[in-house]
This record gives sequence, structure tokens and C-alpha cells, in this order.
Amino acid sequence: MPELRKDPVLGRWVIISTERSRRPSDFLPEERPSIGGFCPLCEGNEDRTPPEVLSFRNDGTPPNTPGWSLRVVPNKFPALRIEGEILREGEGLYDKMTGIGAHEVVVESPLHYETLSTLPLKAVENVLRAYRERIVDLSRDPRLRYVLVFKNYGAAAGASLEHSHSQIIALPILPIRVAEEIEGAKNYFRYKDRCVFCDIIRQELQQQKRIIAENRSFVAVAPFASRFPFETWILPKAHHPNFGYMEPFPYEEAGQILQDTLQKMNRVLNDPAYNYIIHNSPFPDADSDHYHWHFEILPKLTKMAGFEWGTGFYINPTPPEEAAAFLREAK
Amino acid sequence: MPELRKDPVLGRWVIISTERSRRPSDFLPEERPSIGGFCPLCEGNEDRTPPEVLSFRNDGTPPNTPGWSLRVVPNKFPALRIEGEILREGEGLYDKMTGIGAHEVVVESPLHYETLSTLPLKAVENVLRAYRERIVDLSRDPRLRYVLVFKNYGAAAGASLEHSHSQIIALPILPIRVAEEIEGAKNYFRYKDRCVFCDIIRQELQQQKRIIAENRSFVAVAPFASRFPFETWILPKAHHPNFGYMEPFPYEEAGQILQDTLQKMNRVLNDPAYNYIIHNSPFPDADSDHYHWHFEILPKLTKMAGFEWGTGFYINPTPPEEAAAFLREAK
Repeated sequence: MPELRKDPVLGRWVIISTERSRRPSDFLPEERPSIGGFCPLCEGNEDRTPPEVLSFRNDGTPPNTPGWSLRVVPNKFPALRIEGEILREGEGLYDKMTGIGAHEVVVESPLHYETLSTLPLKAVENVLRAYRERIVDLSRDPRLRYVLVFKNYGAAAGASLEHSHSQIIALPILPIRVAEEIEGAKNYFRYKDRCVFCDIIRQELQQQKRIIAENRSFVAVAPFASRFPFETWILPKAHHPNFGYMEPFPYEEAGQILQDTLQKMNRVLNDPAYNYIIHNSPFPDADSDHYHWHFEILPKLTKMAGFEWGTGFYINPTPPEEAAAFLREAK
Repeated sequence: MPELRKDPVLGRWVIISTERSRRPSDFLPEERPSIGGFCPLCEGNEDRTPPEVLSFRNDGTPPNTPGWSLRVVPNKFPALRIEGEILREGEGLYDKMTGIGAHEVVVESPLHYETLSTLPLKAVENVLRAYRERIVDLSRDPRLRYVLVFKNYGAAAGASLEHSHSQIIALPILPIRVAEEIEGAKNYFRYKDRCVFCDIIRQELQQQKRIIAENRSFVAVAPFASRFPFETWILPKAHHPNFGYMEPFPYEEAGQILQDTLQKMNRVLNDPAYNYIIHNSPFPDADSDHYHWHFEILPKLTKMAGFEWGTGFYINPTPPEEAAAFLREAK
């Protein structure tokens, strides 16, 4: 059973992952996703993953057989376990709890070499549809407090499988990073009576210099205080706190701007490794005034080094205005 | 002039580094420190760095000539500039200020292939001596609020030069990560009337299972909530908030445990890339009861991925008790 442990100074939680326990010899100098070879996420290998919890598939094909365009399956080596009870315990001055939660894999295509940049737009829309269905479903589990949707693309971004996929982790506690973001947005709202993200969108659309792409419902922008070169946020223009509960959800425009942004990055940065994270409100209904869901896309072009670890500051060698111009002009 | 910009939601600052401005073509898929070739930090190349601000050298040798065992020089491509005034300004809803600060390089040996693991103990002690002298000197600049000492070793840890060196960055604002750590320690002190780090040391010495090394003045420990496999903290047993102002400073024991810990990591993990950071109180005298300076050594064996970026949680696949046993037993 994995264990959640809390740092007694910072209140930061870590998952000590016993399912994935690794000895010194497991840390090879360069890990790479296996190229070629066997892939458990490819069509035809459905029996090599745990049984699917969601799939979009041809009428009449049974679960866990070929005929799907997208599958969501539990992670075979989950960071957290869905079965069990949350037990909280002390160990001297330290705090820990059982590692209860969900860890799922969204397999975005039956084909090994497709990516979110090359898939048909409808398939990208279905990826977003799957995220939303899983968020709504996992939010019903009273043991869980937060559902995180993210993607690691490329070895430098931490991907261990090459086949196009995203991950969903549901946690029994509200993560500190999310709590801080919500607190920051709340503080701004208290002071201004406006959503800080709505204000950012208004100012960016007016100034135009950090805009990367735009359609009727969304805007892609290089944030003013970008931590990383070519960091990009995609925000819905209309205020809504929760990605999973926004209705109606503009699938086509969301898929279009996500795919367009990733394609621009590919062209300008030659298929970079990246992480993206959906920043989302923890609650379906609450926090409606101050929080505003959005994507954060973080290309992995620089390394996190001692300065960043020590301060929480970042040194970004590419001004976001320049990054936005490069991406905006990429055709 | 570099610019400091503040994220309007999180209050996180970034340095937009104009001195190091990089275009898309500068982000090669794999950067590595140049092996062989010209090294500006080697003895004999003193004219290829800015003039030294501190050196330990043979009697009678003039500054910026050979004959030194350690040099501290301003970074040739500084993230922040030491000359100028701190100007604070708004840009609509955003906040920024001029990038004033110091960025120095501690060259730890005149020889290219030495490391903190291979240098004589006296040379490691001198590295610590140089850190302390620079902290004390930079703390006198009324524009600066925090001095960070850190080391990036190996390409995966963000090192861009192979020659053994550390870095010192002095900042005009207290970094958020440091403020949070101090706040956490303060909260603990308010509740317990004891320093949380002193309590950690007591419990660890009693339990022994996460102890890696120990001498009269210091203890090296795998923290209970380690973020990373083989993460190691080195703490002075005696309570002191500030590394630069601790008197008398036990140089020999500090150098010995730092070198011993790095040598153990080398043996167990085959010369891993790592970052280390000195976590230090921002003020020379204040905060004396609750904060306790220490080293944090972070081997780079896993990648920061979407989950970590999105939550501030970490997934650690090696329980610290196991990591400590491997390191403790390394001879």
C-alpha cells in the first residue's frame, strides 16, 4: 500500500510509492520510452492493461477488445490505490496516511504513433470528453478531494510510455499547489471583486503582445510571469471554475485551440517534450466567482536547477512577448 | 537589464533574463556541458571571467592571476545585475521590478576534473568558508533581502559548465519558497515552543532508520517526506538559524560530512547529477528560535512531471528508509 507523508515544515505531501519501489540500480543514467517493442496501450493488447473504466468504441464491440478509439484504464503501477480506507496516523512528530486515490491512464488513440498534434480534431475533442466524464465520476467518491488531469509528453517530461496518453490522479487531500492558487485568486477577488483570470484575459486581449491564438471561446497566451520559455496557458473566455462541470462545453473550440497550440510548439521547437496540466477548481459548484479553470502547457526546454529548488523563483531566458510572437506566427 | 515579474495569482516571482535571451533554435534537444575544449574556470584563464571578488591564493600572487586554490567571480551571464536602482512598476494588473541582485560563481578548484568528492578535505572546508564570507558581505547591501547558495552538478541538474563550481544569487525580495519554510517553522514553534528541525534531529537520532551519516556536529538524514529518491539533508546538531553567521563554525566536521555524503551517493548511484541548496535564514540575527539552517541535497534520478507541477505533491519510488540504508552502508 502506498503511503502519503507530510513534510512537517512545509506541509507538503509526498507519495511514497511502494508499488513502484526502485533500488539504486533501477536509476539508469538516461531513461527513454521504449521505441518499438511491445506496447500495452496499442489496439489488440487490451488484456495487458487493467479492465477499462471508460471507452469510446464501435457499436457492438465488447469492453476490453479491439474496436475502440479511446480507452481509460487504471494505471497498472498506480501511485495510489482505489481500494481501502483512509487511515491517518502519526509517527512521532510526523504525519502520514494510507495512499488512497485513483490513478488512471487515458489512451488517446488505438494507433501507436499518433499524437494530439496529428489526431483528427474529433479525437482530440473525445480526449477532452473523457477527461470530463472521469472528473465527474471521480468527484462522486466521498474519500477524494481533488482530481488532476495531466499529460507528460516525451522522456524529458517524465513520460515512460511512447503511446499517446494522459493521466488522471484523484487525491484524498487538496494539494498545496492548488490550495495556494485558489487562495491567491480569492485574495484578488476580495480586493477587486473581479476574477483575476478574467482580468488577465481582458488585459491580454487588449495588449495583444502575449496572445498566441484565439477563437470564439478560448484564448492561448504566454503568461506575463512565464516560468519557462514558451510556457502557454489556454483559458476559456467565459468565466467558469470547473472544467468538468462547465455546461455547455465548447468541445470543438477547446480541441481546436489545444491542437493548434501544440502544433505551433512542434513547428517552432521541433517536437519538444512538454507537460500540460488542467488547473481546475476542486469543487463542482463552489468557488464560482474567483476561480477560472485553464490549461497550463510547460515545454521542457530548460532544467529546474538549484536556484529554482531553493527559492521557488524561476529564471526564464525567453521573454514571453518573444515566445508568443514565435508561436503566433508559426503556421 | 533583467526584469523581475510577479505572477498575479500565486505571488511567485520570475526573472526574465535578457542577458541570456534565447530563441527557439537555442534549445537543442540535449544540452551537455562541454567535455574537453576551453574552460573559463581553469587556472590560467583568469582573464576570461569578470574580476574576482574573493580568492584564496598563494602569498604574493596578484588577483586574477594563477596561484589560487579557490576564486569567487561574478557570473559572466548574470541572471541579475548588481548595478542600479530597484524600480518597482505596474503594467495594468501586473507587477514588475528591475532585476537588481548579485550572481556569483564559486570556482572550487583550479583543476578541471576535481569535484567535491575528490578534493582534499581542506579544499571542501574552503568552499564553505567562501560561501560564508560572501553571505556576510552580500548581507550588508541594503537593497538585497536574501542570499542563496546552491550547486548544480551534472547536466541533468542544470550545470552548463563541467568545472567544479557553485553559485550564489542575492535577491532583492524574500523568495516565496523561503518565506513558506520560515512560516512553517514559525507555526511549529508557536504550537510547541521548540524548533521543528531540532525535533526532527532528536527523533531521527533516536529512530536511526533514516540516518545516513553523523559526526560530532552534524547529521545527514533521508527526510521522512523525501520528495526524491536519495534526497538527503545535512543539519547542524546545534540550533543556529544562519549558516553565514554561526560562530564558531565547525569547518572540518561540516566539510567531512558533506564530502562523505557526496562520496556515498557517488558509490551507490554511480556519480549522479544533483543539486544542493543551503537553506538559510534571511536575517543575520533574527528568527533565532524557530529556523535552523541546513543543506538539502537532491539527486536528479527522476523527472519532475505533470503531476508534480500540478499539485506540488511528489511521487517518490524509493522509501527514505531504504535510501538511507543503501547510503549508510556505502563504504
